[in-house]
Amino acid sequence: MPDASPTAHNYAFASDNTAGVCPEVLAALAEANRGHVPSYGHDRITHEATDRIRALFETDCEVFFVYNGTAANALSLASICSSYHAILAHADAHVERDECAAPEFFSGGARVVPLPGSLGKLSPDVVDQAASSHHEVHASKPRVLSLTQSTEWGTVYSPAAIAALTATARRHNLAVHLDGARFANAAAALRDRPGATPADLTWRAGVDVLSFGGTKNGAAGTEAIVFFNRSLAAEFAYRRKQSGQLASKMRFLAAQWLGLLRDDAWLRHAAHANAMAARLGRELGAFPALRLLAPVEANAVFVELPPAVAQGLFARGWHFYAMMGEHGYRLMCSWATQPADLDAFLGDLRAVVSAQ
Amino acid sequence: MPDASPTAHNYAFASDNTAGVCPEVLAALAEANRGHVPSYGHDRITHEATDRIRALFETDCEVFFVYNGTAANALSLASICSSYHAILAHADAHVERDECAAPEFFSGGARVVPLPGSLGKLSPDVVDQAASSHHEVHASKPRVLSLTQSTEWGTVYSPAAIAALTATARRHNLAVHLDGARFANAAAALRDRPGATPADLTWRAGVDVLSFGGTKNGAAGTEAIVFFNRSLAAEFAYRRKQSGQLASKMRFLAAQWLGLLRDDAWLRHAAHANAMAARLGRELGAFPALRLLAPVEANAVFVELPPAVAQGLFARGWHFYAMMGEHGYRLMCSWATQPADLDAFLGDLRAVVSAQ
Amino acid sequence: MPDASPTAHNYAFASDNTAGVCPEVLAALAEANRGHVPSYGHDRITHEATDRIRALFETDCEVFFVYNGTAANALSLASICSSYHAILAHADAHVERDECAAPEFFSGGARVVPLPGSLGKLSPDVVDQAASSHHEVHASKPRVLSLTQSTEWGTVYSPAAIAALTATARRHNLAVHLDGARFANAAAALRDRPGATPADLTWRAGVDVLSFGGTKNGAAGTEAIVFFNRSLAAEFAYRRKQSGQLASKMRFLAAQWLGLLRDDAWLRHAAHANAMAARLGRELGAFPALRLLAPVEANAVFVELPPAVAQGLFARGWHFYAMMGEHGYRLMCSWATQPADLDAFLGDLRAVVSAQ
Amino acid sequence: MPDASPTAHNYAFASDNTAGVCPEVLAALAEANRGHVPSYGHDRITHEATDRIRALFETDCEVFFVYNGTAANALSLASICSSYHAILAHADAHVERDECAAPEFFSGGARVVPLPGSLGKLSPDVVDQAASSHHEVHASKPRVLSLTQSTEWGTVYSPAAIAALTATARRHNLAVHLDGARFANAAAALRDRPGATPADLTWRAGVDVLSFGGTKNGAAGTEAIVFFNRSLAAEFAYRRKQSGQLASKMRFLAAQWLGLLRDDAWLRHAAHANAMAARLGRELGAFPALRLLAPVEANAVFVELPPAVAQGLFARGWHFYAMMGEHGYRLMCSWATQPADLDAFLGDLRAVVSAQ
Repeated sequence: MPDASPTAHNYAFASDNTAGVCPEVLAALAEANRGHVPSYGHDRITHEATDRIRALFETDCEVFFVYNGTAANALSLASICSSYHAILAHADAHVERDECAAPEFFSGGARVVPLPGSLGKLSPDVVDQAASSHHEVHASKPRVLSLTQSTEWGTVYSPAAIAALTATARRHNLAVHLDGARFANAAAALRDRPGATPADLTWRAGVDVLSFGGTKNGAAGTEAIVFFNRSLAAEFAYRRKQSGQLASKMRFLAAQWLGLLRDDAWLRHAAHANAMAARLGRELGAFPALRLLAPVEANAVFVELPPAVAQGLFARGWHFYAMMGEHGYRLMCSWATQPADLDAFLGDLRAVVSAQ
Repeated sequence: MPDASPTAHNYAFASDNTAGVCPEVLAALAEANRGHVPSYGHDRITHEATDRIRALFETDCEVFFVYNGTAANALSLASICSSYHAILAHADAHVERDECAAPEFFSGGARVVPLPGSLGKLSPDVVDQAASSHHEVHASKPRVLSLTQSTEWGTVYSPAAIAALTATARRHNLAVHLDGARFANAAAALRDRPGATPADLTWRAGVDVLSFGGTKNGAAGTEAIVFFNRSLAAEFAYRRKQSGQLASKMRFLAAQWLGLLRDDAWLRHAAHANAMAARLGRELGAFPALRLLAPVEANAVFVELPPAVAQGLFARGWHFYAMMGEHGYRLMCSWATQPADLDAFLGDLRAVVSAQ
Repeated sequence: MPDASPTAHNYAFASDNTAGVCPEVLAALAEANRGHVPSYGHDRITHEATDRIRALFETDCEVFFVYNGTAANALSLASICSSYHAILAHADAHVERDECAAPEFFSGGARVVPLPGSLGKLSPDVVDQAASSHHEVHASKPRVLSLTQSTEWGTVYSPAAIAALTATARRHNLAVHLDGARFANAAAALRDRPGATPADLTWRAGVDVLSFGGTKNGAAGTEAIVFFNRSLAAEFAYRRKQSGQLASKMRFLAAQWLGLLRDDAWLRHAAHANAMAARLGRELGAFPALRLLAPVEANAVFVELPPAVAQGLFARGWHFYAMMGEHGYRLMCSWATQPADLDAFLGDLRAVVSAQ
Repeated sequence: MPDASPTAHNYAFASDNTAGVCPEVLAALAEANRGHVPSYGHDRITHEATDRIRALFETDCEVFFVYNGTAANALSLASICSSYHAILAHADAHVERDECAAPEFFSGGARVVPLPGSLGKLSPDVVDQAASSHHEVHASKPRVLSLTQSTEWGTVYSPAAIAALTATARRHNLAVHLDGARFANAAAALRDRPGATPADLTWRAGVDVLSFGGTKNGAAGTEAIVFFNRSLAAEFAYRRKQSGQLASKMRFLAAQWLGLLRDDAWLRHAAHANAMAARLGRELGAFPALRLLAPVEANAVFVELPPAVAQGLFARGWHFYAMMGEHGYRLMCSWATQPADLDAFLGDLRAVVSAQ
């Protein structure tokens, strides 16, 4: 059993999925555990969670709960792509780098085309060029643009930036998918701006389908596929079933969303994660020997560490991952990150640096 | 929210997945929710749950947790079959009738060949004949026999019956998969017999891979793929990841198994479900107007109801499904079925019958 | 090298693909072999062959040449079906029995649902029933009806029979595919009837897409996928390329069609094959010991042979296949079947029968 | 009909598949067209062609004829790869750039990983690095190295270079596939060197499976998949059938190989194509305004043309393709390229250049 041993926070910054389940989700699971209810989503909890997501996005979208982010992305893309289509995505996107070719598997052969862009972001020019290049039937036909918000680099697209990208996509008859495994962090980052509601960040900006992440936000394991373009959802229920993503006891996926969405827990947790990352970024930036590699806009901090510093932290039991080149590292914060975690990490960092 | 309204037990017999989560699983989930732990299964809870399954089966099997039974079956079969292979299974098997062609999807085209057999059971002769028929390369090549225990008809194979089937499979170079969505109910049904341990029912009887069901036994949603034939598990971790079945917060899948396996909760719950079904079968059998369609060996009761009786029960709010022809119906019991559920159902049944 | 040895015609009745290439096709291949021409179908021969097929069917259909019948069927069906769809077809259809699950492979999981029907034909009632049965998302959703003309039993649907089937399909929102590996034989069988032109037999009767067989009709190897419902052909060129069915030297597929279609060679050859089968059927029917199992309407003869008779013919070197039960055999005629082949076969048959 | 018009050679350099069929192949097709023979490859012509390929490679390899190069490559790779595997190949390889993701389709999701290398060649270092990078189960697992000989840049690997690459592959447990769409041109280029027989260039250098190209060498359309590692061929016959690549009238695929292989026609034609390319390269290199972009080692010439020169040639009706950047163009020679084609092209080139 994991315990409260001195090393308990050594995974605190490794990923936002090393965290457990937030209290609101745990309570909702317990609350959902009453009586016999219809299976496969024909229950009241699922209906209520679906309606809450519709209310959140202020539109009559189609909502499907699935188990994890890889499935959410791959099923979204497979609902758009045939086997001979291409998916345009950032070279660092999860669909390109971290899903063991799940989009290819779920679609039967659609190919991800990796595109460049600084700080994890795509630009309209790059998309325009990729969508314009064609080769008749000899290469996969571009069919969808997949964006990530917040990005793999912890940066955040403005609604205007998304709209510019989706406009480019439309000109090339591409649908637009948004990988929102960390959509909550983006929404929290932008929530004080005008014109940056969840609706503004998605369908009003031209997004057709969203992988709305619950797991990294504080759930045990659930993501919602949200089709703003309802025509893409036709027959999707069959696709979800065939691919092993239809939960028989659906209420327990849906209940997690009730926990997250009630009283805006989802935004509060994301804002907390962002704030922890902001503090971590500020404090790391104050070390003369270190260099931040990206602005801290959501819940990730990218920092260049001298090799001896990284090794020193590893030696003290910290786990975190190299992300770019040899000396770039990613530190993630989550709903569960505590100031004490930061204090412990920064304390060890100071000790390691001063020992150089 | 589902509540304790008068209609709360109306789904009590619709399926064993209308039940919620048993207390042991809920406690294990809460207990697992401590601290930051490695993701993707590199945590202590996952290791412990894996070891408990190995201990239960008394062998060094490979264990992979996935989200649901359709995925467990389809991934097991895809680890055995190429696209041009055939899967021999009973015509009423879940892989044939209830998974929207998931085996075909996960394997890229392997075909399920439905075989006849009374009461949901296959016989060695039928398997022998199906495996013998061939047509050179023009038809899918038989590669695996998929059995179901307990069967879709609520019957139970003896270890000897399984061994006879697997021996036939071996003669034709077929691997053997066991769909154990309700393996617990079979194990509970046989537990007082000598030579009917979980090991006896599986690898000692020649089973290569088991879909070990947790969800219907009392979990929220988790199944274990257990490879007794470890060579079939080579590279399986990639297959699980690519198909969207690798949980980032794996501890919450694994913890459910800790809840089920500690103190034999899994067997106790299954035995309870079986006992409820046995009582239901006995009481239904006492109605002169009704006829049981199968012996009650596990947690399912199959009964022929005159149309007016079925309609009368539906009118009183009961949900249950027709399973064979027009007048056959299935009533399922689970860990959560209460004597009060039976009393309410039987009371309504008496009222409906006497009103005829 | 195959030669004119005494056993040269021993494969004459084994299949209509044991025949070689008809003279018109051979001449067209030689004629096409001039100069450098654009590849991948952008050449004048391909354009001309396409136009001839449009003229033959009196409509502006989309035409794609592929290599063989399995690919023609599977690609046609994959252009209609997603992985979670079902294909309704006769239990003896080539897509069900003889293609090693190619429809499943090309579509990524669509399942063929075999339906009963005497003499290889489906009836509207059977289709209606199959399309009506559903099981929500738990079973593949019926999406297409695949008919075969002439059937695997050498029988021929009238235009009215096809129209009745397609009307049933339309009521269930099913598209209609026609496996016309032997469409020529059906067209030849019906050519003296009013209202039985190629157009009448296909799009005017409600067919969306035809696999138009060239190979069995006298080509070396080419089939045309003819989309009467042009919307199904959108992006089909990509699908053909990705699946390895786009010929770089397309002129040599197209030229075979020029050879077949010029001066109605295709109909003449099919009529010849039908006439040979008719004579064979008549002469077999005159044997008191034999029994025809199906009316001879196209180029196949199904006959019940006493075991000793079949063995006697095999002993004399004849090759032909058992098709139903133990004693039913199929004898196929083709463009290349000669009266001398029939004489030799019938002579041996008489000798075998009289030796009983 | 294509004709002998003044523009007949305008496609002479567009590709080596704009050529027709060489006389030896046409004769073999006609010769094969005798009598009824067993279908699906059980005929004497197929056996003879198979044996000739075994003799050519001096080993008891498994040989399967398929229709085209995309299928040969994709099926070879699918016989090695599961859906979660990666294929290492040059960024300009046909499997990466020109097959519309056929490897992904045939394997159900295996991903091609494009690698850099000058002049179309890979180096052991690059392969070593790509095979070494791993990411646990989150990225496709490298499983096969796919080389191209002669390369897409018209260059030729020496046997030693191939052996060095396959040794690297072996160290990483990668199988080795050789895309030999133009294997004949490589064999012809090296035939005067010691230790460069077809066997030396393939299995003796560590190649497991070869896509042996017939089409570009002078056939109408046929490729041979040659498994030197026979274990990879287990059950391959099913895979070929299911994917629509099993010819019913197989003799006409096999006969093309008899035409090519008898009297070394294949090598003679390839040597002719190489010689034409060599002359074209020499003459282009003599133009001060032009620059060759790669050594001419096989049948391709890569040349940089000033924009006005390229436009001038296009305006005179010549077809050829841009291959790198804006000003690089590819000119292909084939068995059918005639000195008169070169004379015409060079004449037009001189006229265009002098008009600048």
